[in-house]
This record gives sequence, structure tokens and C-alpha cells, in this order.
Amino acid sequence: MSHNTFGHLFRVTTFGESHGPAIGCVVDGCPPLIAIEASEIQRELDRRKPGQSRFTTQRREADEVRILSGVFVDEASGQQITTGTPIGLLIENTDQRSKDYGDIKDKYRPGHADFTYDVKYGVRDYRGGGRASARETAMRVAAGAIARKVVPGLLVRGAVVQIGPHAVDRDRWDWDEVGRNPLFCPDAAMVPMLEDYLDGIRKDGSSVGAVVEVVAEGVPPGLGAPIYGKLDADIAAALMSINAVKGVEIGDGFAAATLRGEANADEIRRGNDGQALFLSNHAGGILGGLSTGQAIVARFAVKPTSSILTPRLTVDRQGHETDILTKGRHDPCVGLRAVPVGEAMVACVLADHYLRHRGQIGAVRAWP
Amino acid sequence: MSHNTFGHLFRVTTFGESHGPAIGCVVDGCPPLIAIEASEIQRELDRRKPGQSRFTTQRREADEVRILSGVFVDEASGQQITTGTPIGLLIENTDQRSKDYGDIKDKYRPGHADFTYDVKYGVRDYRGGGRASARETAMRVAAGAIARKVVPGLLVRGAVVQIGPHAVDRDRWDWDEVGRNPLFCPDAAMVPMLEDYLDGIRKDGSSVGAVVEVVAEGVPPGLGAPIYGKLDADIAAALMSINAVKGVEIGDGFAAATLRGEANADEIRRGNDGQALFLSNHAGGILGGLSTGQAIVARFAVKPTSSILTPRLTVDRQGHETDILTKGRHDPCVGLRAVPVGEAMVACVLADHYLRHRGQIGAVRAWP
Amino acid sequence: MSHNTFGHLFRVTTFGESHGPAIGCVVDGCPPLIAIEASEIQRELDRRKPGQSRFTTQRREADEVRILSGVFVDEASGQQITTGTPIGLLIENTDQRSKDYGDIKDKYRPGHADFTYDVKYGVRDYRGGGRASARETAMRVAAGAIARKVVPGLLVRGAVVQIGPHAVDRDRWDWDEVGRNPLFCPDAAMVPMLEDYLDGIRKDGSSVGAVVEVVAEGVPPGLGAPIYGKLDADIAAALMSINAVKGVEIGDGFAAATLRGEANADEIRRGNDGQALFLSNHAGGILGGLSTGQAIVARFAVKPTSSILTPRLTVDRQGHETDILTKGRHDPCVGLRAVPVGEAMVACVLADHYLRHRGQIGAVRAWP
Amino acid sequence: MSHNTFGHLFRVTTFGESHGPAIGCVVDGCPPLIAIEASEIQRELDRRKPGQSRFTTQRREADEVRILSGVFVDEASGQQITTGTPIGLLIENTDQRSKDYGDIKDKYRPGHADFTYDVKYGVRDYRGGGRASARETAMRVAAGAIARKVVPGLLVRGAVVQIGPHAVDRDRWDWDEVGRNPLFCPDAAMVPMLEDYLDGIRKDGSSVGAVVEVVAEGVPPGLGAPIYGKLDADIAAALMSINAVKGVEIGDGFAAATLRGEANADEIRRGNDGQALFLSNHAGGILGGLSTGQAIVARFAVKPTSSILTPRLTVDRQGHETDILTKGRHDPCVGLRAVPVGEAMVACVLADHYLRHRGQIGAVRAWP
Repeated sequence: MSHNTFGHLFRVTTFGESHGPAIGCVVDGCPPLIAIEASEIQRELDRRKPGQSRFTTQRREADEVRILSGVFVDEASGQQITTGTPIGLLIENTDQRSKDYGDIKDKYRPGHADFTYDVKYGVRDYRGGGRASARETAMRVAAGAIARKVVPGLLVRGAVVQIGPHAVDRDRWDWDEVGRNPLFCPDAAMVPMLEDYLDGIRKDGSSVGAVVEVVAEGVPPGLGAPIYGKLDADIAAALMSINAVKGVEIGDGFAAATLRGEANADEIRRGNDGQALFLSNHAGGILGGLSTGQAIVARFAVKPTSSILTPRLTVDRQGHETDILTKGRHDPCVGLRAVPVGEAMVACVLADHYLRHRGQIGAVRAWP
Repeated sequence: MSHNTFGHLFRVTTFGESHGPAIGCVVDGCPPLIAIEASEIQRELDRRKPGQSRFTTQRREADEVRILSGVFVDEASGQQITTGTPIGLLIENTDQRSKDYGDIKDKYRPGHADFTYDVKYGVRDYRGGGRASARETAMRVAAGAIARKVVPGLLVRGAVVQIGPHAVDRDRWDWDEVGRNPLFCPDAAMVPMLEDYLDGIRKDGSSVGAVVEVVAEGVPPGLGAPIYGKLDADIAAALMSINAVKGVEIGDGFAAATLRGEANADEIRRGNDGQALFLSNHAGGILGGLSTGQAIVARFAVKPTSSILTPRLTVDRQGHETDILTKGRHDPCVGLRAVPVGEAMVACVLADHYLRHRGQIGAVRAWP
Repeated sequence: MSHNTFGHLFRVTTFGESHGPAIGCVVDGCPPLIAIEASEIQRELDRRKPGQSRFTTQRREADEVRILSGVFVDEASGQQITTGTPIGLLIENTDQRSKDYGDIKDKYRPGHADFTYDVKYGVRDYRGGGRASARETAMRVAAGAIARKVVPGLLVRGAVVQIGPHAVDRDRWDWDEVGRNPLFCPDAAMVPMLEDYLDGIRKDGSSVGAVVEVVAEGVPPGLGAPIYGKLDADIAAALMSINAVKGVEIGDGFAAATLRGEANADEIRRGNDGQALFLSNHAGGILGGLSTGQAIVARFAVKPTSSILTPRLTVDRQGHETDILTKGRHDPCVGLRAVPVGEAMVACVLADHYLRHRGQIGAVRAWP
Repeated sequence: MSHNTFGHLFRVTTFGESHGPAIGCVVDGCPPLIAIEASEIQRELDRRKPGQSRFTTQRREADEVRILSGVFVDEASGQQITTGTPIGLLIENTDQRSKDYGDIKDKYRPGHADFTYDVKYGVRDYRGGGRASARETAMRVAAGAIARKVVPGLLVRGAVVQIGPHAVDRDRWDWDEVGRNPLFCPDAAMVPMLEDYLDGIRKDGSSVGAVVEVVAEGVPPGLGAPIYGKLDADIAAALMSINAVKGVEIGDGFAAATLRGEANADEIRRGNDGQALFLSNHAGGILGGLSTGQAIVARFAVKPTSSILTPRLTVDRQGHETDILTKGRHDPCVGLRAVPVGEAMVACVLADHYLRHRGQIGAVRAWP
């Protein structure tokens, strides 16, 4: 990962600012002969689109993606397939009328990247957060829609497991429920309470953090590239690169620090299929930086946005002390829309490692 | 990060297995004209060396580092300085006599990388964990000793902040205390209790996890490379790449998920030096992937080693079900020796970003 | 360089097929605060645009470039400046109507990439050569227009020095002449003869090769990254990556093989400015992979296109033997339009190394 | 390629100065289960070792290579095989006694990297050329010995095809002859004349350039990564990175510039094996940056060393004008010993692309 590109063999490069003419990305290294339609990418984009419920920002973004390159319609099947050349994706920003950006033009919003971009670059596109806006994550979701198809049999799903202090009950986990409520919550019983809680946050003009869990199933064993391209290290970087994320865990994560070795070891038996069968998954599907073949489990913590109605102390570009409050419609819990983003990042990392593994090893080998 | 190299402009490549002839690394991209003596590297190595107390493995490793290239004695000053060419470092493994490796040759230790290396590569050097051994981290510490000198004024320190369920009292934090006890603990009052606790773990032939905190001071503002080379993303990958690490946090980390936006925003004033003065550091010194100029605060969770005296269920290379217990002297808490390793990784990431920033920006600019 | 990205700190990623919806690129790592207008990029694009004379293909391409991101209008000056974020550039392909692609759909044109793309990917976009079309080089020229502004004082110019067997007379070299004739020829006296020669080639439905020379002046000494990021090695890769290029030389190039050491050594004096003054430039401005501060001189050989009216033996996708001739309007000498492309590649490599050097060294140092 | 590492999946990192304690390299990404003995690496090293004839420098270098990591003795077969972890290789410099380095300590040798290293880094290890010494190429040859085994069926051979103005007669080409004379010359009839010619050069204390050709057979079709990781671009960079190389050609190279399209097109038939059969190889086995399956043919020009007995004008580190002549025993034609180095570089590039191709494509596919 470097600058605005991530991945080694499956490489994603994004560009674009929140209120510029367009955002886009280039997916390079995707294998050929994979069927892909714009509608499949669009479907994932729609999952993170704002304005879908009262719990996300009311901004309207059409977010219609165009595939500009890297695909070709196979005449025999009529299917659109990848060609192995770079796939260019573009979303025009439909609403970029000039307007008054008010305070954010000159004042640094606490908890945002305003100050750091300015101190680094000496200039920043302040409109809607510019490059630092979460709008950039739309392109990650688009790239992830392609990545999901690179690893055969891969299933990557995510859910919100905590909003503010309220954690879901894992015994009531239902993946189907995640798509049925606007909170990406796997615990149906908890949704009404969480909705009430978020309504309160929203009415206060406040915001709150969340924890998101991503689970990847169908991951072949052996993916990863020790020592510095470990699968968990790459997932950690990928998730930490999402806006507002402050922590990443694999498997038991920080809870592992409290365990003894006896409890933490995932014991192994031989399954009916003749393959290794782990009796537990404290490790989150990764040992020594390599996938075990179990589900990969990653969680990340999303801080509350600082775009709130309560004034906060700050300084302006000229160094004068002042304060700022952020008007306009914002997400009371940005963690919600991070679910498809987190899924996409994990899918991209897995696609990359799948290709790297296949390069070094030749074929994903079965356990002896 | 990729394979066995990490960093872009300040690049570290390591090699070597636990019981092979030697371990080594190449530090590439280090600027010229930096004074460095082997003794300075050795001093850091000695901090992570095993056998220093009853709380670390009793293995003896001389760990004497040789500088093989990339330095030259300046005739004027008599000082050894870097030349800008790659710095080769080598530690011969002194104790590699052939011996009986017993169960670990054929059986997969749960919680270790035995199974995954074998399934990936079809072969593994099982002696002492081979490449997956924590012995590799000695070379990270060596590279980190050089990295510390690349960023002028940089101070990177680490401490153990939790052992098993026992967290230190941050109000009693004393950096000087960290070097005075074998637990890298900043809370003197807590040391006796923790020693007793670890003695119990050790006598049980068990192990326990820990949480380590690394704090970097003197970091210029603006370091980082959004969007996919964010400073926090690179630190997350670097720390997650350390053996047994299962979670990484920046600033408030997972606790940020429970906060409201009002509490989480780090308000800004103008300090006496005319620079930005933050009134708090929930962000851990990083906003939008760029350093703010505050202290960078990162924590990571280390799982307990599975090398314990209690038998655990497993299978062997032939797929037969069996069990295994790990004899020999092992660390009751591998998190302790992870402190200098964590420091080294953060120092390397900062050196890399310092050079990248200087390349793109020309010079670290002062805030207007 | 890897896949569709080149450069390390100044990174260019291109995408797009000849007859797809659009071609584009992302320029990542460009420093902030550089003034750049779309018209400056357009001016360079117009230099390589086809249809400008009877010696280039008569295809019409509007090639209107849009800047999609990475720039911002500075309010104080009204100037558009770079912001340090990735610069997205896009050219819509205006003429992509469905049509009969005839033979090239099924038959492999000798000397083209048809066979190799098919054997590698199992699919190819045959329309106009798809990704292998020289149309991709438009984006290199666009990126090069930005690169030229990264290195202060840099001047990169190119010229055709040989067409078929006819080499220019270097004693009559006139840079101003290059822009005045359609052959990019620096030797005015030779232009009429070369035009006659190319008219003959064109009327025969044939094609011919050429040699292009690129000269970069104003290059600070010390750019380059030995051992494997040598300036000449990166220039060689950059030029060899241009369509139809089969050879690259630095300075005396292959002629150096015939020289003795006495003749080849560029002797050094001290110039009036107190800096090193070289008495000759056999080395082409590069020693040990590092720039000397002299002009950098690189040449590359461009093969004749195989798109000719004389039938050539080949096979089709089904493996049947057949023959093919390429109708339609093609370049009699593709080397002509390679001049701005070669300049752009050299400019990009220099921008990249300028940033890398500045990162490692801090500032381009004056000679003691 | 970057700094001191080349390759993406098959990555080679070298370190070490001519007169430092040791030189070494790390070969990372080599697939597991490849049989390799130190003696196989040593055999290649011995081919480039100096002091083998009166036509190479009389310096004595034992050049005994040790494998420090990345291999394991398979118990079943007793064979030493790669494990997939990084392979560390080391050659101790046996003769590093302190001595008088005379003029080269303070004076810049024209045609050498003395000036450029000093101006870049502000310091240089002048002993024997330090990092810029051709001694570094020993590690390339060592890495190449491993690379040769990565691509099944690969055969990479090189020969000197021109010394000074004297080119070999390609009709008398005999690969077996190359190993029988000290000039790596494939034309037995020409050897006596060339030996006389070089004796004259040597007695004059002079030096002369050469051209080396490398031919790789058994290369699967489809290797390469367009657009910027083209096989020929990577080969060009790899060869240009060798000390003293000033030009690189693929196939017909610069001669292609003089050809017409009819002559240059390599026509295709269907061979008896059902695969594509090319009737000529002007392209040197690469079209569109991808291998065709034919032999890959690359040539590179090596300049004469400037280490000669005739004084040349120069300046010293203090900027004073002076002159210098280089005593001591040097190669009259450094191009000779570049043959195994060129072979090694091509082998490394092919190994890298083989793994990259296999990653993206899954398996090298047969032509339909």
C-alpha cells in the first residue's frame, strides 16, 4: 500500500474529491475471463449510498458507476468479461454547484483532516472534506465488487456489532437480518432499541462511534505472505485506512490479551472431509500470517464524526483562535455505512493474496 | 510491505530461521551521513534478548550483530557514518547443534504457524519455529535502531500496559520505571503483583497475553500518505506483523466507538510557540492518516503463546489425530519482549514516512 | 514499474482501450502547489495527435483531456494548482461506433500483440488493438506534461534522428526546427528528402522504422537510486515500454562498445560557476546510475509497424493457417509520433527520481 | 526495481561494498520445494570470477558463497530444498586489509561513479569503487542460479558477440565453444584474433568495450505484464543496471529502425506440435511486452572501463583541477565477465514474470 494505490497483484488506485468533477478508480491485475456487469458493482454501491434511512446523511448521490475499460463482451455467451487489462471505473459527481462552504473553508474542524492536510500540503480542497471525505470509499466498494469474484467460493459479509456502548448479542446473530434493517445489525431484537438510541443522537446534533465485524468464508488455507505481507497485517492496514477507523482486531483481538495459552489455542481434529477441523477460532482464521481455511474474522472501531452541532474550540488558517460547529446533514453514526466498505477492503486483500499465493505456489494445494 | 520487506523509501528486508546458520537484514534507503555504531544497535538488541529474567525464555542467544556494509569511517571525525548504500546486518546463530526436535517435527502445535506453513509451502523448517519464530524480530529491533536516527528529534518508547486481565494505572505512569523492572511496566506500584502473577503462570507451565503501548514523540506534523499509505494504516500493519499480535489501536482505539462526537474531538488552541496546540489526544496523534505533531500513541494486543505444558488436541503431518504439549523453556508472557519490537516497528514506519514526506513536500513545513 | 503503473513517488497509472469508452490515467504523488492548467496538458497531447500531416494516421481523435481531481483554484491568485492528491485525467473516446473489424478479429497480425494477448489472457479486445494500441501513449504524454513541472528548471526535448536508413546530420541540429516540420526532424536540410522517402513508403502501403533522441537539460546531479533503480535503468524501461521500441541507448550507447577507455572517459574541469565541468558527454549524463548534471541523452529505436498492405502469413484464433493484410489508414512511420511520448517518459522518470532523491537526501546538494 | 531490490514476486536485494566485510543478497519469493545446493550457485559464481585468464583482472577473490536461510534438507530424499522463505546468501570479502588507496581517495576517476556518489551522498566508500564496484554483480549471478530453477525447462545462455570493433560471425555460432575460450566467444575461428587484439589493449594499459548477447529458450508464451511491466522493459532495466552498460536491444534492436514493415513482421504458421510456429524472430521473442514462446534475444553494450594507464583530466573532492591514471590490475575488457551477469539478470526477470503470470492467470495456458 502506498499513496492512493493498494494491493500488489490485485491493485486498486483511487482518485477524486468529494465535490470535484468525479471520483474514480483503476483496478489493475484482475484476472481475465471473469464475468462482471456494471449492475453488480452498482448493487454494492447502493448498499453504502447515503440517504437510505434517517440514520445516514441525507445528501443525495446518484453514484452511478461506469466501467470505462478492461471488459469485453464475449460473443459466444453475450457475457461481459474481464480481459486482464486495467478496469477503469468512474462516478461523476452530480451535485457540484458552487456554494458557500462557510466556516470549513478557513477553520479547522477538530477531529477532521483539515489541519493535517493543510500543514502537509499547504493547500486543501475544503469542499465537503475534499480527498479526505468518506465519499472516496465508494470506489473501494466498487473495487471490492470485482475482488469478490476473483477468489472462487469467497463470501465476505459484514455487520455492525456495537453502536456506542451497545453491543449486539452474538447468540442472536442472523446474517439475513443484516440486510433487513438500516443499521446493518445482525441482532433483530436489538434493532428497535438501537434505532431509538440513534434517533436521540441525531436529534442532539451529535454522533457516536461503532464497531463493525467482517467475516470472510471460503478462504483457501495458506493465503498470506510472511513476514511483512501477513494476511492479518494487510487486513489491518486495509481496515485502518478507512475513514475514522481507530482500531482493528483479528479473531479474539484485544480479548486474547486476557487469555491463558490453554484457552487461546485452537485445537485441531481431522474433519469428515479429511481436512483439518479446528475446534474453535480464537485466531480469527489466521496463524503466522497465513489463512487456516477457517472463517477470517476481523473487527474495526469507528470513531464518532466530529461534524456535530455543539461548538468546538479550534483555530483558523491564519492561526487565530475561534470555534466551529458543523451545520448540514451528517451521519449520526458513520460506522453504519462502513460495513460495505470494510467488506470491500477485506475482499480486495483476499483477492490480492489469492493471486500472490497462486504465483508463488502454482495452485492452492490441498492438505496432504 | 510485501513478503519479507517493509517500507518504501526506508526499506527493511529480513531473512533467517530460528535454528539456521544466521539471521540478517538489509536496511535500504537510509540517508547518508548519519553516525551509527554497532554498539548502538546492540544496545537495542540487548533489550529484547531472552534470558534476562525469569519471565522470559531461558534460551541463550548471544545476538551479536555485525554491520557488513553501508557505513564508512569518516576520516575527519573518526565517526562511522552511513553512506546511503544498503546496510547489511548479520547475527550468526551460535547454537544450532543438531538435536531431537521431538514432537514438533511431525505434529502441528495449535496456535502456532506449523499447520499453515506446511499447507502453504509443503515443507517447513520446524526447528524452533523456523521462519515463524520470534527470533526474526531481533532484526526488526536492529533496523529500528537505525530508523530512530533518521527522524531528527524522534523519541519512541514502549511499555507493557496490561498483562492478562491486569491493566496498569495510567496515573502512575513513569517512563523511567519501564527500564527498571523486567516487565517493561511503567507503573512501579504494580510490579510486585504482576511478578507474582507471572510466577504463577510460569509454574503452571502456562502463558498469558499482554497489551503493549508505544508512544512516539517529536514526530513532525504532516507525515503520512493518504489514502492507502496512511500513517495509522502503516503502523497497524507494522504492529500486526509482529508474532502473536491480534489487535492494534491508535489513540482511544476501540474505546472511541463508545464516545460521542463532542467527547472525541480534540480541540485546538494556539500554543505559545505559535503552533497548533491540541487540548487532548483521543486521535493518538493522527488525523486523516497524517500526523498532527502530537505524540503518536499505538497499542497492540499479544496473545498468549500456545507453547504450554498442558496437552492440546491436534493432528500430525499425516493427518492422524493426536495431542501435543510443548516442553522446554518458553516465555510465560511473550508480550514483554514485544516492547522493543513494537518500538522498532513504529520507528521504521516513521523513518519511511519522513523520507516519503520530504520527497513529496521538499521540507517539513512549519505551520503558517 | 508493474502492470499499468510506473514510478515510485511520482506514480502514473493508465487504463483504457483504443475503442473503449475512454482512456485515462491517475498521476499520484505529484507535489502540491504546482500551477497546472488543462490547456498545458492539451498542448502536449496535440503534439502527438494523429492526423496532423500526411505522415501520420488519418484517424481523427479529439483527445480532449479533462482534469477530474487533484487540483484546486487558489483564491488569492486565481491559478489552478495541484493539491498533492491524485490527479485523475480522462479522454473520452469519441468514435466508438460499432463496426466491422474484419480480419483482425480472428487473425493474428504478425508483429502485433494479437497473438500474445490471446495466449496470455484467453481473450482480447481486438478493436483497434485494444489495450496494446499506441492510443494508450496519449495518457503518458498527459502525465508527462505534469512531470515536466515537478523538477524546477527541467527542459526535456526530443527529435527524430533517423528514419529507415537515413540519419540526420548532427552538425545541422536545430531544436527550433523540430517544431517546424511534421517529421520532428532537427535537420532542416534533410526534411525534403525524408518527406519524399516517407511519401514513397506511404504509397507502397508500407512502413519504416526510426530512431528518436530525447535530451533532458537542467537535471540536478545525483538523481538516481543505485543499484536497481539506476536512472539509466529506469529510463531504459520507460522507453522500452513504448509501443514498437526495440532498443534503448544512453549517451554513446552501442558505439561505446567500439571505443577505448581513453576516448570514452569524460574528462572533468572546474567551470566558471565553481561546479564540475565535463569536457565531453559520452556517458549521456549518467555515471554509476546517477545523473552528473550534464544533459541526459537517450535514444530509442522504433520498429516499423506491421500494419501494411502486403499480405503476411499468419494463423487465426482456431489455429488455421491463413494470411492477412491490414487495410485502413496507418502511420507509415510510427516513430514520428513517438517523440512526445519519449519526452514524456523521460520527464516522468526524472520527476520520480527527483522526489526520491529529495526524500533520501533532503535537498539537492550543491557540489562542495 | 527500486534502490537495491529488483523483482516483484521473485525479489532480489543485494548489499555490500567491494572492500567491506562481505557482500550478500536476499532472494525473496522463491517458490518452495526446489532442490538447490550451494555448489550449483558456486558453479555460476566461478564463471564470473576474476583471475581466470590474462584477459580479466588478476585480483583474487575466493567468492565462496554460503546459504544462510530459506533451505531445508528433506529427510526423505536427503536433498536440500527451498522452503518458500527468504534465501540469504553471503560471500565474505577475504582481502580487506587496510592499504593505501592512493589517488582514488580524493580524485574523481572520469567515467566512474566517484563524482556522482560524492555529489549525491556527500560521502563514498572509495575502496575499490565501494558499492559501485562490479563486485556487486557476484550476488546477481548467485541469485540468477536460483532463478534458473524457478521456470521449468528454462535455458539462459550468453556470449560475447563484439569486442571493440570486431563482431563475431553469426554463421559460425557454437554455444559449446563459449565455455571453451576465456572470451565467452561463440565463434571459435575468431578467438585467436580477439586474443591478440586484447593482448594489445592490455599491454597498452588500455581498455575496450564489448557487446554481449543473452538468449533464453524454453520461455512459456504470455509472460510479461503490459503496459509498464512489459517483459522487454524489465529486461532492459535489468541489463542497463549492470555496471558500464550503455545500450540494450531486443531482437533486431536498432537494426529494426532501418527495416520496412514487410521485412520486420515475423510470419506465423502452425507447427507440427499444433502450436504457433514463427518463421523468423526479428522481435526477439517478445510482442506487446509479452513472450511469444520463441527464444528471447537481448543484447547489451558495455563501455570500456576508464581504469587505464593514460592520465585523464579530472578534479579532486576539493574542486582542484588535476589528473589521474589508474594503476593496478584491471580488466582490459569488462564486457567479458558481464556474460554470466547478463544471463543472471535475464533469468531473474523471467522467474519474476513466471510467478506474476501464474498468479494472474493461474497456470500457463496452452495455445488453443
